[in-house]
This record gives sequence, C-alpha cells and structure tokens, in this order.
Amino acid sequence: MADILIKDADALIDGKIGKHSIYIRDDKISGIDTEPKDFKPDTVIDGADRLVIPGLINAHTHSYMAPLRNIADDMPFMDWLLKGVNPVEDKMTPEDAYWGAMLAMVEMIMCGTTTFNDMQMHIHQTTRAAKESGMRAVISRGLVGSDYDKNDVRIREALEEMEDGKECDRLSFMLGPHAPYSCGPDYLRCVADIAKEKGLGLHIHLAESVTEVENLRKEHNCTAIEYAQKAGCFEVPCIAAHCVQVTDQDIEILKNRNVSVVTNPASNMKLGNGFAPVPKMIEAGINVALGTDGAASNNSLNMFHEMSLLALIHKGVGKTPVCIGAEETLRIATENGAKALGLEGVTGKIAKGYKADLAILRLDTPSMVPRNNVLSSLTYSANGSEVDTVIIDGDIVMEGREFKSLDVEKIYAEAEKIVKK
Amino acid sequence: MADILIKDADALIDGKIGKHSIYIRDDKISGIDTEPKDFKPDTVIDGADRLVIPGLINAHTHSYMAPLRNIADDMPFMDWLLKGVNPVEDKMTPEDAYWGAMLAMVEMIMCGTTTFNDMQMHIHQTTRAAKESGMRAVISRGLVGSDYDKNDVRIREALEEMEDGKECDRLSFMLGPHAPYSCGPDYLRCVADIAKEKGLGLHIHLAESVTEVENLRKEHNCTAIEYAQKAGCFEVPCIAAHCVQVTDQDIEILKNRNVSVVTNPASNMKLGNGFAPVPKMIEAGINVALGTDGAASNNSLNMFHEMSLLALIHKGVGKTPVCIGAEETLRIATENGAKALGLEGVTGKIAKGYKADLAILRLDTPSMVPRNNVLSSLTYSANGSEVDTVIIDGDIVMEGREFKSLDVEKIYAEAEKIVKK
Repeated sequence: MADILIKDADALIDGKIGKHSIYIRDDKISGIDTEPKDFKPDTVIDGADRLVIPGLINAHTHSYMAPLRNIADDMPFMDWLLKGVNPVEDKMTPEDAYWGAMLAMVEMIMCGTTTFNDMQMHIHQTTRAAKESGMRAVISRGLVGSDYDKNDVRIREALEEMEDGKECDRLSFMLGPHAPYSCGPDYLRCVADIAKEKGLGLHIHLAESVTEVENLRKEHNCTAIEYAQKAGCFEVPCIAAHCVQVTDQDIEILKNRNVSVVTNPASNMKLGNGFAPVPKMIEAGINVALGTDGAASNNSLNMFHEMSLLALIHKGVGKTPVCIGAEETLRIATENGAKALGLEGVTGKIAKGYKADLAILRLDTPSMVPRNNVLSSLTYSANGSEVDTVIIDGDIVMEGREFKSLDVEKIYAEAEKIVKK
Repeated sequence: MADILIKDADALIDGKIGKHSIYIRDDKISGIDTEPKDFKPDTVIDGADRLVIPGLINAHTHSYMAPLRNIADDMPFMDWLLKGVNPVEDKMTPEDAYWGAMLAMVEMIMCGTTTFNDMQMHIHQTTRAAKESGMRAVISRGLVGSDYDKNDVRIREALEEMEDGKECDRLSFMLGPHAPYSCGPDYLRCVADIAKEKGLGLHIHLAESVTEVENLRKEHNCTAIEYAQKAGCFEVPCIAAHCVQVTDQDIEILKNRNVSVVTNPASNMKLGNGFAPVPKMIEAGINVALGTDGAASNNSLNMFHEMSLLALIHKGVGKTPVCIGAEETLRIATENGAKALGLEGVTGKIAKGYKADLAILRLDTPSMVPRNNVLSSLTYSANGSEVDTVIIDGDIVMEGREFKSLDVEKIYAEAEKIVKK
C-alpha cells in the first residue's frame, strides 16, 4: 500500500464540514491537517470541488440477492416470497451467490458504502467476493433450525467460513440466527450459547412484520424481542434488523441489553410492514444503524436513498419537521453502523488512527449547489451519483467512478444469467 | 431542427418495455419502427444498453427556489418560512430568480425531466430561463390578495408574462392563485372569473397542512376544497397541489369537477404535513400527477427520487405491498402529468405525433442490472443518474450528461452568490 494525500478538500469531521487535508498511510488515516513524519504521497487527490465523508455503513443486507433486484414487486408478501424470491433463490448455485455479491458490492461502492453487514446463505461466497472487491464486511451465515444441536450443518458452515476469512483483516464474522419464525427456541438458545463460548456477536431479523409478532404471541405468549431475550440472544453483542413491531417494553429491553437496531425503511415500506418507531428508539438511547436490506425488498443498495428515506418518513409519520435531522442521519449511517458492527474506533469516522474508509463526492453537481449547507445536501438532495472516488482500507478501489480492479461488465453479464435460468 | 434516429433501443411504450427504433423529425416523433418517408437522420443514437422513456413531468414546482435548496432544514414550519426561506426570498432580485430557475432546469434535465409546472414570483424569469434551457414549461405567476380587483398588479403581471411567452410554443400559461390562506374568497373569485373569460387553467396549493384546513373551518366553515369550489376555481381546468388534508367528500368534489391533483411526497413529509391519501384519490378516479415542489421543501428536483417515494410510502402507510406499483408510478409521472398540464396528446408518451420529449437512460449501471424487470428498476432502484441523453421538442439538450448549450459552471457560480448575499 501507498501514501495518499487528499489536499484541501471539504471534509465531514465530527458532524461538521470544513476544509482539511487528509493524510493516509497504508490502511489508516495517519494525519488530518498535520503531515506525518516522512510522508511522501504516491497519490495526491486535489480536493477542489470535492467533499470527503466517512464511507457509509450498510448495517443490514443480503448481498447475494442483488440479482433478485426486481424479481417480485408489487405483490402480496407470500407471493413475493414463494412465487418470486424462493424459486430463483433455490436455483442459485454458490457461483451465482458469488456473482450476486459482486454485483451488490459494485453498487454499494458506487454509492459510497465501504462497509456492510451481510447475512448470506452460500458459505464462502460473500467472503470470496468481499476479498476481491476490497470492501470491509461483517459476515454471518443465515441459520435456521429447531433443535439444540451444536453440530447442526449450518452452524458448522458458519464456523468454517470464519476460518476462511481469518487471513483478511477487513472481514469479521457473526452468527446469524435468521429470525424467530425460522429458529425454534432451542435452536436459538444453541446459537446464543455458541456465540457466548466463542465470543461472537449475533445478527438476527426481529419484529419485522405483524404476522411474526402475532404468531409468537399465540405460540409462545411473548413479543419477538422477549423471544430473543429468553433464548439468550442479548447476552452477547446483538444486531437486530427491522424492529418494526416493537412495544415500549421491547424498546426498554433493547436499550437495557445494549442491542443495536438496524432500521430498513425502504424494505419495511415495500413489503407493507410499515414504519419502525425509530424516533422513540433513538429517544430511549438505543444505538440505531441503517441498512438497505437485500435488493429483492428495496430494490437498491443505495445508502443515500436510504438516508433520505430515514430523514423524511418519520417527519411524515410524526407530523413534525423536527425529527431525525441531517446530522443525525449521517451519524446513523456511519458511526452508529460501526458501533453496531463492533467496528467502533475502526471505521465510520474521519479521525487519526481510523481505517482510511472514505468516499469522495463531487460538489459540482446540481444536488450539491449551492454549498450553504452541504450536510443537509448529503441527506436530502444527494442521490449517490456524486460519489467520485472510494478508498477502503487505504486502497483506492474506485476513482472517477471507474473501478481499479473489478471487471464490471463481466459482473453485470454474470448477474443477468442468474435470473434467466 | 434535424432528423434523429434512436436505433434498436429498449423503450417504454404503453406501459411495456420492448426493442424499438424511434424516428424523430423536427419537434415530433414521426415514426416508431416504421421509417417515415425521406428520412435522412443527421444524428443516429445507438440504442444498445439504452432505455428510452417519455421525459418525466414535474407537475408542481417553484424553479426559482432551487438556490434555497437547504436554506432551512429540520426546523418547525414557521421558522422554516419566516427565518429560513422568506429572508432569502425577499432579497432575491429578478436576475437571481432567473439563475435560480436555470439551476433548477439543469437539475431537472439531468434527472430526465422534460416538462415542469412552475409557480413563480418574478415575472419573466421562468419564461426567460425555460426559453434558454429548452425545457417545456407551464408557468403561472403566484397570486395573493384579498379584494375582487381585476386590475391587481400581480394579475396584470401574470397576463403580461403570457404575452412574453407567446412566441415560444414550448411554453403555456395558467393563473396561479397561491392558496386559500393567501387568497381571500373575493380575490379567488376574481382570479377564477378571469381564468374563465380568458380560457385559462388554474394552479393552486390546496389542503397542504392541518393548520390551513383548521383555520378555514374556523373562519369560513368549510374545507380547503370547498373553499376553492365556492370561489369558482373548479369551473376551469384546475391543478391542485398537495391535497394532503382532504375528506372523502373533498375527494368526491375533486373527482366530479375533474380537478387534477399533484402529490408531493417529499415536501409533505419534510414539512411535517404527513401523507396525502393518494391510493384513495386514484381509486376515486382522480387524475393524480407527481411533483417535487420547490427545492426548499424537498430538497431535490429529482423525479426518480419522487417516484420511489410515491411507490414506497403508501405501501408503508396502508401496510400493504400491493399499492401504487411500478407501472402506475411511471404513468403518474408522465401521462397523468401531461393531462394535468393540458398537454395530453402533446407530451408524456412515446407515440407517433407526440412531441419528441425523451430521456435516454444507460442500462449498464448496477441499479438497472439485471434487466428482468426494467419497469420496476425505473421506479424502485434508479436514482436519476442513469439518464444519459435528453431530447426536448426534438432538440438534444444533453448528451452523455453534457449540456449542448448551457454553461453549467456559470449557473452554479451564480446560484452560490444568491445565498451568500
């Protein structure tokens, strides 16, 4: 790796935008405005008309599903799942999952995302794709089952994938019990126990739909949050995706157990699940992060789109223009994501010692003109196409919207084949 | 003007996407798949990896406000208006309004919009900017007042601007009584009478906020829709922007009087006004079109963003994934807009004899891959940056995202100056 200087650019540091020079050595930010010793940049990026932000963190997605982008839209949920998504998913080979994940990573990088949290179904494939794309990723193999069985094949696969990813320090791993409706209480307890033994975090879908919580009430006389708590899921660091159907008491549990919630506005609307009580969860002090979910339920992996949704919908729901403002939205999409993923102090901020995970945007685009409040523009008017250059782990992976080492045409072509099967 | 051939492109025709060649002569589409007589194209656009759609129609905006893009965000409505928007607006000169409108048009064209419906405050300036940008526009000067006075200065200005725009056949005009809270019943009646005499349509804000309808109830014992009806607004073709706070009876009136409603999802959320009952209005048979509103309350003029909001939020509000699908969303943003603006049969469709108002998108972008349902991608995953080339009235105004005749850098620079005053 080489030294990089981003010279005299606008930069988003600690919630404020100002002119800065950023010095990158190897994989880290080694100085801001103060040149490190013996700094001889191999690359100097001119900061004129450019804005540097921390790379965005997509805290809940399923990258292999990118080719299922619009396999099933505008239909009832069960048709979406059984007639739309499942038949294609069932035919997907591990190779397909790899190309799907590659398509997702191209899309994410082009919209300024540098880190993502992935629940996947095909062992090794997200790991393989993330190694190639250069992205930072937290990976969990989706786990479904009913019995307490530490030798369950999926659990073994999950642990095997962790071995596979060991050598790449951009990758980390969690266990991914899928959801209360796909994991019986004993299985969930088993996964939680293994997580505790091995010092791993959990990544789970919780309280996504009315049906889910109604069924849990009938069958287990509890809420989704209580179900997960009883099984021990909150005894380790836990990421709960969705949390749309939560009670005030659920919110208290989530806060008290330090669970990070990932909200997925587009997915929750598109599948007719409604709006998560995000302002209430923030008010309670929960660490809320932001995710796109998979492409089949969004249908994009564009965190700028997701940020604008987050900032807008709760103003509509609460009938107040003062709710989840621009600065908070950006923090949710960066710092809070890092905290959820166990990457606090590693990524999600532009600060000395942090990984050099950065998106550089063009300011000479209509969405960013005038520049009187660029922070607001990032949330309300940017659409992601302003992203010009992306640096991850000190590597320039995209520059002038061209990828340094990915064969984008090949990735598009392979993704087309998957849905044509 | 010259003949243009778009050869073997995917094209959205009658709600379906298929391969077509489109022949353009002068300002019109003169053939689809069938070459017109003596057709000698000066320009041939290769349709490989390209999708042609009807240019989008932004059915309610205030173009001069583009430089106020983020002058006032995340604050209560009265602060937004009185401390944020008004002070800058008050300082704007006609020249500023011109540059503001130019910025808006650059943004709209770059996101595939070819026609817009503008309510403006500075006589001649939208007209001047639309003439230069090449866009198709329906223009109304915002009118506020209390008395029945046919010689009111604003009304005279509105009629004067119509004279100014006469020679440009891309422009048409309406009268723009601002809103019930800014137009007394006598003034509104006066404007409606003039519209009737002169055969003009009306463009008005109606039922935008709870405060508006509560005050009307107190002061006039009626709803906003009833207020406008009593004043005679619906005796001429009428465009009602917003219609968030409408009763079932209001919806019946709007339908029976053939009023076109323009919904503005981002603006209604951002200002805390909530969600318009769009599915109900569609169900009732009202012609619903789509608009971005002005940049101060959105903050972008990107119709792709607005389409995705329209298609997503009502699924969230109604807790159903089957509501305002992709095809309907696109029709709302094109054909319905044309109908609202009195441009039915003129623009909003790719059909022989229609004006050549077209946006050509790149399909080799992640948001459009795979291509199994491009219609859906347009609504759910495109962000507007896929737009490569825009043709309006048979003129190529943008190609490869470069403008043919606009000095974009100068426009950005002038827009910056306005907010720095």
